[in-house]
Amino acid sequence: DHVVVLGYGDLTEPILTELADAKVDFVVVAKPENTNLPELKERDVPLVVADPSDEEPLVRVHIDRARAVVAATNDDANDALAILTARELRPDVNIVAAATDRENVDKLKRAGADTVISPALIGGHLLVESALGSTDSEIIADRLVDGPLATSNDSEE
Amino acid sequence: DHVVVLGYGDLTEPILTELADAKVDFVVVAKPENTNLPELKERDVPLVVADPSDEEPLVRVHIDRARAVVAATNDDANDALAILTARELRPDVNIVAAATDRENVDKLKRAGADTVISPALIGGHLLVESALGSTDSEIIADRLVDGPLATSNDSEE
Ligand SMILES: [Ca+2]
Ligand SMILES: [Ca+2]
Repeated sequence: DHVVVLGYGDLTEPILTELADAKVDFVVVAKPENTNLPELKERDVPLVVADPSDEEPLVRVHIDRARAVVAATNDDANDALAILTARELRPDVNIVAAATDRENVDKLKRAGADTVISPALIGGHLLVESALGSTDSEIIADRLVDGPLATSNDSEE
Repeated sequence: DHVVVLGYGDLTEPILTELADAKVDFVVVAKPENTNLPELKERDVPLVVADPSDEEPLVRVHIDRARAVVAATNDDANDALAILTARELRPDVNIVAAATDRENVDKLKRAGADTVISPALIGGHLLVESALGSTDSEIIADRLVDGPLATSNDSEE
């Protein structure tokens, strides 16, 4: 009943924080060349150092009983490979992914992801809403998170 | 009554699309070394090739009568410099920004941005919501945009 996090990128730290806050167990599978490994090891983040697109490490982290799989590194090609591997091992598991290049949303879905988001599209939308004076984006962003995702210098400050 | 877009990064294309859809005039100020310049010029995107942290190009694109300023490149340091310049020229204009590194949200606000979002934090949150089986993120993402920001392979497909 854990979440398997495939690879480590810009979105991973927020993901791990959210999972920890939700008291959900997780394990990260990250390549040996990942520059964040020393810091992750120092922080005792549950970690398997291996290519997340190989079957063996996914078996080792018990993908067979995972509740969900997350593929959200900055390298969409690696995400696609990792998703293909995870989907082959677990036809039924919930796989979510982030397309760093917004043009890869459909490719990651075809690779087997159930849900794919594009942070650039979401971010661009929120910025334009905010630029044009709508306060909707702040309201929605407030609903999205408890933390300071979209914070404004209000006149009260 | 136009929007001044400072720099060009991963979020810029979604931003330009949203501004065009909203029928809002805009102009992009991008450095000569930006690799997207040839394509932008070919597409006749309103463009001034200059450092967006210099005063002269911001005066030239009439920041004095802009309705808003957007600073959302992948380089938060450049965003900060551009925001400082824009804020000095226009103490009253609405400036929105995206922090590529989530730890720079407060810095961009101190530089003078009214609203700062973190696409990584928003993306991470939506992914975890989706991974843990909540459908909220899809509903919220659907409300955020008309396009396929967060799309799922539903059973109907
Ligand atoms: Ca990705
Ligand atoms: Ca930025």
